[in-house]
Amino acid sequence: MDGGHDAGRPIVTDAVIVGAGPVGLFQVFELGLLGLRAHVIDAMPQAGGQCVELYPDKPIYDIPALPRCDARELVERLLEQARPFAPEFHFGHVASGLERSADGLWRVTTHRGLVFDAAVVILAAGLGAFMPRKLDLDEARRLEGVAVHYKVADAHALAGREIVVAGGGDSALDWAAELAGLGASVVLVHRSARFRAAPASVARMHALCDQARMQFLEGDIVGLDADGEALRAVRVRARSGIVQRVGAEQLLVFWGLHPALGPIADWGLDLEKNQIAVDTATFGTGVPGVYAVGDVNTYPGKKKLILSGFHEAALAAFAAKEYLSPGQKVPLQYTTTSPAMHRRLGVSPDLSDLA
Amino acid sequence: MDGGHDAGRPIVTDAVIVGAGPVGLFQVFELGLLGLRAHVIDAMPQAGGQCVELYPDKPIYDIPALPRCDARELVERLLEQARPFAPEFHFGHVASGLERSADGLWRVTTHRGLVFDAAVVILAAGLGAFMPRKLDLDEARRLEGVAVHYKVADAHALAGREIVVAGGGDSALDWAAELAGLGASVVLVHRSARFRAAPASVARMHALCDQARMQFLEGDIVGLDADGEALRAVRVRARSGIVQRVGAEQLLVFWGLHPALGPIADWGLDLEKNQIAVDTATFGTGVPGVYAVGDVNTYPGKKKLILSGFHEAALAAFAAKEYLSPGQKVPLQYTTTSPAMHRRLGVSPDLSDLA
Repeated sequence: MDGGHDAGRPIVTDAVIVGAGPVGLFQVFELGLLGLRAHVIDAMPQAGGQCVELYPDKPIYDIPALPRCDARELVERLLEQARPFAPEFHFGHVASGLERSADGLWRVTTHRGLVFDAAVVILAAGLGAFMPRKLDLDEARRLEGVAVHYKVADAHALAGREIVVAGGGDSALDWAAELAGLGASVVLVHRSARFRAAPASVARMHALCDQARMQFLEGDIVGLDADGEALRAVRVRARSGIVQRVGAEQLLVFWGLHPALGPIADWGLDLEKNQIAVDTATFGTGVPGVYAVGDVNTYPGKKKLILSGFHEAALAAFAAKEYLSPGQKVPLQYTTTSPAMHRRLGVSPDLSDLA
Repeated sequence: MDGGHDAGRPIVTDAVIVGAGPVGLFQVFELGLLGLRAHVIDAMPQAGGQCVELYPDKPIYDIPALPRCDARELVERLLEQARPFAPEFHFGHVASGLERSADGLWRVTTHRGLVFDAAVVILAAGLGAFMPRKLDLDEARRLEGVAVHYKVADAHALAGREIVVAGGGDSALDWAAELAGLGASVVLVHRSARFRAAPASVARMHALCDQARMQFLEGDIVGLDADGEALRAVRVRARSGIVQRVGAEQLLVFWGLHPALGPIADWGLDLEKNQIAVDTATFGTGVPGVYAVGDVNTYPGKKKLILSGFHEAALAAFAAKEYLSPGQKVPLQYTTTSPAMHRRLGVSPDLSDLA
């Protein structure tokens, strides 16, 4: 849903929202009520943020007036509510750069090259972008994308190669099984013989090991042996402390996703314990035109509740509108009675009264 | 729903919530999640507060994750959400007194004689109690309940009397018509010949005047003539400026309801323009154990939005819990995962996952 925007050519918009979780989605709605259009960036491939990532089907009980609602339904409802304001979503993008341009706009860039010129920026980034948990070794960083991978772009490129798969979840076991018929060798490495993966995946892995179509090795990856850009072996330390070398040309690491504030941490905002300090009257960060709402922010009394993020998004929208209309008071209007808001929502209150 | 409590005998409870509007109802829920029980007082005969009183059937569009919801549905949803915590409602009661008792509890009294001893008091009183708009004359105050009335307790007590009915809405016209066959005389007084009442009621009034069973007089009530407790006449000034006396033993005033902070204004709280100033970390009023949430409060950046009241209620609940558990940190738990909250909500997450 990149709307056909060319990488590099700036997208000019009222607001960029970083994060398409529940609070980011409601931020679209609140800005829309005040006549402001938004583009939304999220590292994930879909809307919903951590609550869809962590517990898509578990009921949430404390969304006001929704006695019971799972994360997936909550996100669908928020998407429907935001729809009249036609937000443009840019999934799979991590917001990487923020700088003030000469015309007073904020230039936001993503790690995949999208560029936005926005009047205001609202960070609704939750705990941060959900990124693959990575192997913390210099050689791993150097070989990332060449011989060390956190996702599989093309399984056929791995045919006939010596492969090590790291991890104990479904992704690791499923890829190990998938590649068992394809690679020259496949070794699964996990820190214990207990697996998070589904029992059926574990049983299949056991069967493939029995058939010598793959191997399992219990231990921690402590080093990589490489020749320039060519990976030669993965060093694995067993619980005994003994380190052995496992021949490998390609290493696939599936250690799950974890949230990290990422590049936002370097934007010069006032951070307290990895959260952005805000003023509770405006949810401004102290940097004019930059706001933070939801779990990413902190202030006295802060509780990381979705319903608090909704309130914060509403006040940030008013503050953003006032920031963009200096000297003008932004009146409080109600969606029940305001003709301007009805026009923006695309509803006719008279007709809808008859419905 | 007074639950058989005797007037005068104190009801001991964790919390008294003043106001059963959307925010008061959600306050019940948030306190309940933390294990605190609440009694709720409201001047109205039912839950819902001003939004049910002012616009029961008009859609509201800005309740998060409810793209379109009328006030009635919103209130039903909030009542359902609060149900696991079995709040006790005391409708038709105006909170009139607040004083600290020796044991550190708050004694809350209502104008009809209920008494509560509560550990904390949370004001969710909106714009105040909806009270009849009254005739602003000393004589009217003196004769209230004797010869001046804002509701009809017993129509038969008015039989054979000289009656003046004031107002232009449905209540005024319906009572005038009802009493036209019962009173010795019935005069309807309204400031103009334009009526808010339904056209059918206006037509019936016209017909009754034609038949000389009642009279209509256009003008403003500017005085009352009385002999001790006996009302003699109502003085009405016509648009011409001429004042005439209309013989009357009983005066019924139906000028609608209007919200007024009422006795709460005299509770010694920090008021700014008739709203209670609060700390946004706790929504405390500055008086220990007394909180204010929703439209009744004010703070920098305050917007009178229902969704803001929801956030305020959540933070007030945490603050109340911490106030009642000094020295203990109240952990943030999530309804999605907390076994304690599931127990309080009466849900079994494992069973409900199968639903």
